[in-house]
Amino acid sequence: MARAGTVQTGRGDIPTPIFMPVGTQGAVKAIEPRELEEAGARIILGNTYHLYLKPGTEIIEKAGGLHRFIGWERPILTDSGGYQVFSLSDLRGIDADGVNFKSHHDGSMHRFTPEGVVDVQRSLGSDIMMVLDECAPYPCEEVYASRSNELTLRWAERCRAREAATDSRYGFPQILFGIVQGSVYPHIRERSAKALVAMDFDGFAIGGLSVGEPVGAMYAMTSVCTDILPAEKPRYLMGVGTPENIIESIARGVDMFDCVLPTRNGRNALFFTRTGKINMRNAAYATDFSPVDAGCSCYTCRGFTRAYLRHLFKAREILALQLATIHNLSFYLWLTQSAREAILDNQFLSWKDSQLRVLSTEVADGID
Amino acid sequence: MARAGTVQTGRGDIPTPIFMPVGTQGAVKAIEPRELEEAGARIILGNTYHLYLKPGTEIIEKAGGLHRFIGWERPILTDSGGYQVFSLSDLRGIDADGVNFKSHHDGSMHRFTPEGVVDVQRSLGSDIMMVLDECAPYPCEEVYASRSNELTLRWAERCRAREAATDSRYGFPQILFGIVQGSVYPHIRERSAKALVAMDFDGFAIGGLSVGEPVGAMYAMTSVCTDILPAEKPRYLMGVGTPENIIESIARGVDMFDCVLPTRNGRNALFFTRTGKINMRNAAYATDFSPVDAGCSCYTCRGFTRAYLRHLFKAREILALQLATIHNLSFYLWLTQSAREAILDNQFLSWKDSQLRVLSTEVADGID
Repeated sequence: MARAGTVQTGRGDIPTPIFMPVGTQGAVKAIEPRELEEAGARIILGNTYHLYLKPGTEIIEKAGGLHRFIGWERPILTDSGGYQVFSLSDLRGIDADGVNFKSHHDGSMHRFTPEGVVDVQRSLGSDIMMVLDECAPYPCEEVYASRSNELTLRWAERCRAREAATDSRYGFPQILFGIVQGSVYPHIRERSAKALVAMDFDGFAIGGLSVGEPVGAMYAMTSVCTDILPAEKPRYLMGVGTPENIIESIARGVDMFDCVLPTRNGRNALFFTRTGKINMRNAAYATDFSPVDAGCSCYTCRGFTRAYLRHLFKAREILALQLATIHNLSFYLWLTQSAREAILDNQFLSWKDSQLRVLSTEVADGID
Repeated sequence: MARAGTVQTGRGDIPTPIFMPVGTQGAVKAIEPRELEEAGARIILGNTYHLYLKPGTEIIEKAGGLHRFIGWERPILTDSGGYQVFSLSDLRGIDADGVNFKSHHDGSMHRFTPEGVVDVQRSLGSDIMMVLDECAPYPCEEVYASRSNELTLRWAERCRAREAATDSRYGFPQILFGIVQGSVYPHIRERSAKALVAMDFDGFAIGGLSVGEPVGAMYAMTSVCTDILPAEKPRYLMGVGTPENIIESIARGVDMFDCVLPTRNGRNALFFTRTGKINMRNAAYATDFSPVDAGCSCYTCRGFTRAYLRHLFKAREILALQLATIHNLSFYLWLTQSAREAILDNQFLSWKDSQLRVLSTEVADGID
């Protein structure tokens, strides 16, 4: 099922499988755009809910779109904001037509509709837009998951119609992805995927996973979806995940991933390496003058030692967050790039097995 | 009195006047070594008190010295730690031979002696070492300032002897600067400067200023010192200051400066520009799509707008701190470089007047 493909956008081709760094508020935390390019990022995420509230659509329109506003010329995918409306805002009512919510910043009232979030994403000028969906929580009763999915499908249809009725902005094409929901219920996932395929989206996301369900259920639901989704269109598993999750999902036919894990874990001194995860606060690294990851060619690994990084974290220096972010994103981007090479070389299964073996290692080296 | 000179070190020549970014704990806050070089930094500071406590001299020795530990190949000047012992630690007793203090980290007891701080700086391998001094507070009785200065002079003599009796480390020469003290009392400053000159230091710092005294007293004391200090040796005004302070002090014959102002102010959204200071949180910048400083060629000014920087600060993004630090340090380094060029062109006085005129402008553009 593993595929090596290309997502074509007006701002450049994206080789897949690909990991997409998360720039929720119009910035990937603790890393500069030029450093994202250096790390190998081909596309980053922005979030419609966050950007709509702050700085607001109007300012980004005046800037000439999100790319110009944030100084990033490569593709951007914007999440629709559905997830954040349901998880982050003070939700004030959901109806057939949309959702009312209070901003988590200042309590101001807002409303998102399927058409509205397409309009906002047109204003942002993202290369890949997402439909408005309801991401069901886990656990979730079957009857709730089913009803929620029906609503999501009606919204998807309306987003698709709005996309068809409106033009791309700023001189670059904008494409729209549908989002498969259905919690951990295979028949709801099937119904969702088939209905979305019929709507002829440019690509398909698998949403509502990595929200607390067992990892086996996540893989099973992913397979249910990828069995149905058309081979010629990109598949994006939202919010996933660990390196192991990414490898297993590539094996199930997923092309695109996003997750805050590399950046957030990095800011907490957890580094991903080709020989396992390490917590840089551990006392063992106090006099370890080797790089984070001898196999890595990122700026952090070229110029700095574990001992120095440990010192920076202990001394609460901002530079610690910068260097950790550079390394962890470089690692994630190396991982998806390596998966692609293995697929193209017809070596994916052996590559997967050897990667999973080392990635399961959490180096046990003393707690400080 | 303004001079354009060169401080020669084993790790490279430093053209003066020069501003030295402050890397207290072995890192300049929120900026990478390669970005410091890009901003024009020729030398940075480290702090003996901080580095001695954390990560500790032993770890830095094992790393092969401070330069290798932090990944910075250009010169480093280390403050002796005297200032921090008196201002930051829990001071537990000062005697003719040294000071006992409790670490501000963990309350552990330590002792600094004149010989000891030279030894620590040998272990750090700094290119420019500083003597142990007592930095008198402001205001300060004349009798206290005088007695304190006598102690500082005896300690300076002992540091000088220790320097002479010990070898440079890691294959690079290390030079030692004396520190003129004397609070705001001209005759004590004179006595201090003359005594230190007689000890034949490689360079001279002017300490104990910018600690709360009127700015006129600071300039007057600086002039008292530079009138005495030998023309052929570098002069370093410690902890100073604003762009105006730096220009006025260059006019009084100072060569080297350090201050946390550009980095700390930057992290608080205050930007220095060629047309005055601006607070990037101000509402006026919400839709200002011009660069921070049209005359600046730093990464921040090349790639980002005021509107985006304001958004980053409002959204509490770490990238705000990074981009502000890059710009403000670039500005300070441009300032001392421009002073040097003006001196070499025999245009210093007119350059000074025009700079002071614009720098006094605090752009009043609405408070958010």
